[in-house]
Formats: sequence, C-alpha cells, structure tokens
Amino acid sequence: MAYKRSPLMEERMAGARERILVAARELVAAGGYRNAPVTAVAAQAGVSTGLIYRHFPSKAELFVEVLSAAVAHEVDILEGIAAGPEPAPQRLRLAITAFVRRALAGPGLAHAFIVEPVDPEVEAERMRGRRRFGGVFRRLVQDGIASGAFPAQDADVTAACIVGAFTEALVGPTAPSRQAHRDEHALADSISAFCLRAAGG
Amino acid sequence: MAYKRSPLMEERMAGARERILVAARELVAAGGYRNAPVTAVAAQAGVSTGLIYRHFPSKAELFVEVLSAAVAHEVDILEGIAAGPEPAPQRLRLAITAFVRRALAGPGLAHAFIVEPVDPEVEAERMRGRRRFGGVFRRLVQDGIASGAFPAQDADVTAACIVGAFTEALVGPTAPSRQAHRDEHALADSISAFCLRAAGG
Repeated sequence: MAYKRSPLMEERMAGARERILVAARELVAAGGYRNAPVTAVAAQAGVSTGLIYRHFPSKAELFVEVLSAAVAHEVDILEGIAAGPEPAPQRLRLAITAFVRRALAGPGLAHAFIVEPVDPEVEAERMRGRRRFGGVFRRLVQDGIASGAFPAQDADVTAACIVGAFTEALVGPTAPSRQAHRDEHALADSISAFCLRAAGG
Repeated sequence: MAYKRSPLMEERMAGARERILVAARELVAAGGYRNAPVTAVAAQAGVSTGLIYRHFPSKAELFVEVLSAAVAHEVDILEGIAAGPEPAPQRLRLAITAFVRRALAGPGLAHAFIVEPVDPEVEAERMRGRRRFGGVFRRLVQDGIASGAFPAQDADVTAACIVGAFTEALVGPTAPSRQAHRDEHALADSISAFCLRAAGG
C-alpha cells in the first residue's frame, strides 16, 4: 500500500509551512536576509531546521517564496486600485501613493525586498516582481493615453521610469527617506506628484 | 641617502598606472568586472600582475579608481551643461539626454557601472557616484524653481526620482532598452521628456 498522508497530517504540514513563511518574513522585516539564517527561522517558527528543509529545499527557495508572496500581495493591491472607477491620473496617483506609503511603513522589508544583496534565485524573483509592478503602471499609463488624460508617450518607458523613480526615492543611495526628520506622508505625496506630472496628468 | 625616484622613473610609473586603468576599463566595457581578473588586466596593459599590485593594493581598489574616473568624467560633462546659458528646463533636458545617450552608446560599461554585482568597496563608490549625479540634477531643479520655470517642489525628491527613472529605464529589469529593435535616440528622448514633464518644465 502506497504511503498516503491523512487529511490531518496534510493540515499540519500546511500549518507548519505557513508558520515557517511568517517567521522568515518577520525576521527579514527586523533585520534583512542576513538576520534570517535557517536556524533562526526554525526557532521563530517553533519547528526543527529539518522540517524547514522538508518544505523548502534551500534557504534561497524559502526566501523566493517569502518575496513572491509579498509581491503578489502588493500587485493585488495595485491591481485593485488600477481597476477602480476613477480617471486614470487619479488611479495612477492612488497606486503610487499606496505603494510608497506601504514601503515607508515597513522600511526593513522594503530594503530587503528591493536592495539588500541576495542569492541569484532571490534576485531573479525580485526582477520578476519589478516587472509585474511595471506592468500595472504601464497599463495605467496606457489607460490614460487612451482616454486622452495623458499625452501620447512611450508607455513602456514611462512605466520603467515610474518604477525607477519611486524605488530610488524610497531606498536608493540618493533617497530623501535616508534623511532624518522626513515627513513620510509629504514624501509619498512628492513622489506620486513627480510621477503624475511625468505621465502628463 | 634615502631612495628617491628619478623624474624619468616617476613618468614611467605614471604611464604604467594609466595603461593599467585604461586596460581595466576596456575589459570591463567588453564583459563586466568578471571579465577583468587582474591577470587579464596585466596582459591587456602589457605589465606584470606584480606591477598592478604595486599601483593598486587590491582588485577592488583598481576598480574603485576606474569607476571614480568615469563618474568624474560624466559629472564634468553634466556640470558643463548645467553651467550653460540656456533656461533651466532646456539644461535639464540636455543633461539627461547626454547622460542617457552616452550610457546607451556604451551598454557594457553602463551595466557594469550601474548594476553588475560588485565588491562592497566598488558598490560604495557607485553609491557616491549616484549621489554626485543626483546633486547636479538637484541644483538644476532648484535653478528652475528659482527662475519660475518649474513649480515649487521638493528638489531632493525630484532629483532622486530623476536618477532612479533614467537608471531603471537604461539598465533595470523593466528597461525598454532590453527589448530588441529599440531606437536609441527615441529612447533617450522619451526618458528625458519623462523627466522634464516630471519637473514641470
């Protein structure tokens, strides 16, 4: 008779997997990937390191999943805004402001997800995420051009520039958020105002 | 009697140093830092690896100097444009277009200088360079605000967004320049048009 997991065991496995992902995310948020060796993730999740490797063949695969879940969540939020009833310029402003405010509210995660040096597999997942974000902004810009709210422009270039602009302003070497005493709401507003002017809205 | 280098020897040393820097730059342009081990730099420059280490204590220090020389050159060009007689919006457009066209003309160097994973010392120099570029754009934006050509805005945010925008559009994961058959002049024009609209000019 072939080995078959019982429904209860399946549930326990899924519960452990979820706890491991939550624990890894918490450690990354607190101190980046280097704050999250597998032993620390195991301790935080209350499982053995062996169990982690049963769910994730390598540390890189664990973090790829932490990152892809976070990206999927952010993309859902952006797509929810993009699908709204407002005119394209307003949706573009809302989407950028939402992204930037969420990043400023979780600077540890934002730094780890966007700039901390990582394994090539995690870096590849980061690039995929950036392209997904770019896709949402490209469609918003195309909407605005189609409705006449934005002037004719190369939507691919505009989307890439928007992603680059808020990324640098959030976590880049020239980021004003690195300065002390920055008002985060004013910063988010300045960044989205920049992008909105750039799209021509 | 203390050892003293003759003028001829000083000149030869300087000549070798210059040849090493040129050789390193050529190899990086052709295939990135990983294409430029010290042995290859020595062969290209026609010197021994020992001589390279007499001039540069480590490979990282050699590449820091290659990068800082390139940054200084680009900053000189940008500052030359920024000091011109044209109104601020025109100088901003000229500066961005010049930077972008130069990067598109040397994609190997642009990739190595901006995104290729590098030693921490080289990465630190890269961050310094990015702040220097940001400084030129910040002053141009401030000029434009002062002359009334640009609306009131946070010049730090605008400068960071400009640097982020053209960097991503040039070499980021969402970069349109990664697509085949892109017209480089049209791309440079689109990027500078984006930034100029964003500054409000």
